[in-house]
Amino acid sequence: MNETDRLEAFSDAVMAVIITIMAFNVKPPTGASISAVRASLPELLVYVLSFAIIGTYWNNHHHLLRATHRTSGGVMWSNLHLLFWLSLLPVATGWIGLFPGESMPSAFYGVVGLASALAYWILVQAIIRANGADSRVARRIGSDLKGKLSPVLYAAGVGLAFVIPVGSYVVYAAVAVMWLVPDRRLAPQTARADIRETL
Amino acid sequence: MNETDRLEAFSDAVMAVIITIMAFNVKPPTGASISAVRASLPELLVYVLSFAIIGTYWNNHHHLLRATHRTSGGVMWSNLHLLFWLSLLPVATGWIGLFPGESMPSAFYGVVGLASALAYWILVQAIIRANGADSRVARRIGSDLKGKLSPVLYAAGVGLAFVIPVGSYVVYAAVAVMWLVPDRRLAPQTARADIRETL
Amino acid sequence: MNETDRLEAFSDAVMAVIITIMAFNVKPPTGASISAVRASLPELLVYVLSFAIIGTYWNNHHHLLRATHRTSGGVMWSNLHLLFWLSLLPVATGWIGLFPGESMPSAFYGVVGLASALAYWILVQAIIRANGADSRVARRIGSDLKGKLSPVLYAAGVGLAFVIPVGSYVVYAAVAVMWLVPDRRLAPQTARADIRETL
Amino acid sequence: MNETDRLEAFSDAVMAVIITIMAFNVKPPTGASISAVRASLPELLVYVLSFAIIGTYWNNHHHLLRATHRTSGGVMWSNLHLLFWLSLLPVATGWIGLFPGESMPSAFYGVVGLASALAYWILVQAIIRANGADSRVARRIGSDLKGKLSPVLYAAGVGLAFVIPVGSYVVYAAVAVMWLVPDRRLAPQTARADIRETL
Repeated sequence: MNETDRLEAFSDAVMAVIITIMAFNVKPPTGASISAVRASLPELLVYVLSFAIIGTYWNNHHHLLRATHRTSGGVMWSNLHLLFWLSLLPVATGWIGLFPGESMPSAFYGVVGLASALAYWILVQAIIRANGADSRVARRIGSDLKGKLSPVLYAAGVGLAFVIPVGSYVVYAAVAVMWLVPDRRLAPQTARADIRETL
Repeated sequence: MNETDRLEAFSDAVMAVIITIMAFNVKPPTGASISAVRASLPELLVYVLSFAIIGTYWNNHHHLLRATHRTSGGVMWSNLHLLFWLSLLPVATGWIGLFPGESMPSAFYGVVGLASALAYWILVQAIIRANGADSRVARRIGSDLKGKLSPVLYAAGVGLAFVIPVGSYVVYAAVAVMWLVPDRRLAPQTARADIRETL
Repeated sequence: MNETDRLEAFSDAVMAVIITIMAFNVKPPTGASISAVRASLPELLVYVLSFAIIGTYWNNHHHLLRATHRTSGGVMWSNLHLLFWLSLLPVATGWIGLFPGESMPSAFYGVVGLASALAYWILVQAIIRANGADSRVARRIGSDLKGKLSPVLYAAGVGLAFVIPVGSYVVYAAVAVMWLVPDRRLAPQTARADIRETL
Repeated sequence: MNETDRLEAFSDAVMAVIITIMAFNVKPPTGASISAVRASLPELLVYVLSFAIIGTYWNNHHHLLRATHRTSGGVMWSNLHLLFWLSLLPVATGWIGLFPGESMPSAFYGVVGLASALAYWILVQAIIRANGADSRVARRIGSDLKGKLSPVLYAAGVGLAFVIPVGSYVVYAAVAVMWLVPDRRLAPQTARADIRETL
């Protein structure tokens, strides 16, 4: 196993467990009627959103590390730092599930999203520092519009949470949808090309 | 680690955690008598069924990816989509454990089974698209009778849940048994042959 | 990733999660006094026993698969079958934690241990069938005294649970200690030699 | 997969699940007000500390195993022994979360830290024994000041817990910060050099 392999494997394990902890938190409805199901709907919807967020991070993280050749102590710690913030997503999801439409849980969800986005940006910088500004991974990252837009949108969502909490959900969902559109920068086919370059 | 390796590793991690979350949900009987054990039996039986379902998906997923050479953004997202539905199996299992014999939980279990079967079918299509219609994986899939029968049977089970809930369990168990009969299409020995072909 | 690699990886993930689910079940004492700690002791001791059992299975499973060249559908399903029984260890552990000294939980713990030991034996047979009676793995297994003694001792423990429950714990602990003594049959150095043989 | 690979993979899986179990234990605040958040702060802070501890072990364990060529039964069991103590960190974290500022939980946290530090030292010795005193890994370890200081500091923290519980938190946090400063002994660049040496 090389350096990035274990980083990927560990990160994958953490993200896999985060996803399933969130699924675990989706409690069965407290009754067997259609109205009991309806009462569980908001919880299920937040779960879908959080699942999409972790799925997106997994996907981007995967492409990022596939384009990475060298790691460093800084890369390892900024990766752990990212995982730390992602590991708070289940509790943020659970809090909204308990108090949908309240300001504090909505804001906390946005803070976790904001901090994760910044932590991802820090990880990208650490990787560029470890691989050099003219490395393939650095050239690939390029302008990174989405990466710059995400923290701004999350910050806006946090502010909105104190005015119209439900509005902040719309912002968070919009960020998720923006990312679901595939990211061409470090896409599989490119990574595959990278390998060919290296051989 | 190549492209499909990480896809496999991540999927394995998620499926492993799903299995153990379900095991975790099987609560110890609330007494130490034989009757307390008997009261826990339905819960244990649903667990056995769900364990068999995840085991089957793991097995098929494994053979499918071993025959796969190329992935794509579409493959990655349809894989996440499959994992999303599978991640709802613990809550569906838990709901039946709470209300055995009720219509809604039985129907929900079937919906999760139906959606997972469709998600698997979508994943197969995405893989064929990424590898070409004349690729080995495409030829191997062939007619895929079981894959076409599963959603039909699950849909029938969902309908039956509103008439005779216990009847729907029989249908779901029948689907599980049908899959436990080994699937020759992409079996290990074949995959092994594939590798030889490639070398 | 070759055939046995993914089998190992998946089994490792399941066993890792089983261990940590059991750790998760060890609840913090309900007070901050020395007597609250003492009340938690039986629970902690059963956890130590269950940890040693899973650790032993992990270790043996690891050596077994390292000596294995070929897998088959039968190997995959008997592996899942073993994981099924091991996945019941957390609930068995938790049940004893709730009712220490009672017959039924002690017997159930022994049944899970017995079934796991038999499932491991079935897995070994499936591997021998897939690799041939004159394969290295088959020769290595040899007489397998411990493997034959384990189910007998567990069965005795189950019987004893209905007479002197605490006595059954002694039997289960004895089985665990018997296994902690390293198993020379498939030890690392041998596996290492195997690799050399193969090259 | 070679010998150390699977040891790493299994250890990673256990540590990943430990981290997320701790995150799972951080319950959402019981209200949606700022004061409900403030009440959750101590719990969150202990979580940050425990996350840093596991992150440090993961990082050191990773560098240690990358410099390791040979394993043995002793290495495998001392690795499981280390994982056993680390697996108690979630319950120690949870206990402090329930009774912040109490002596027993603070002392227990320190005992888990102390035992983990000793278990890591035992693992290092087992690896040196398996690889020889003049192996690269043995030369790399060198004097290991931090490794010797950690148990002393944890023991001091345990003692302090019975006098000024909050003081023990400061000691534990100091140990964590000491480790966050990157450890040059077995750093990535060195491990990378090792690989070159071997080829």
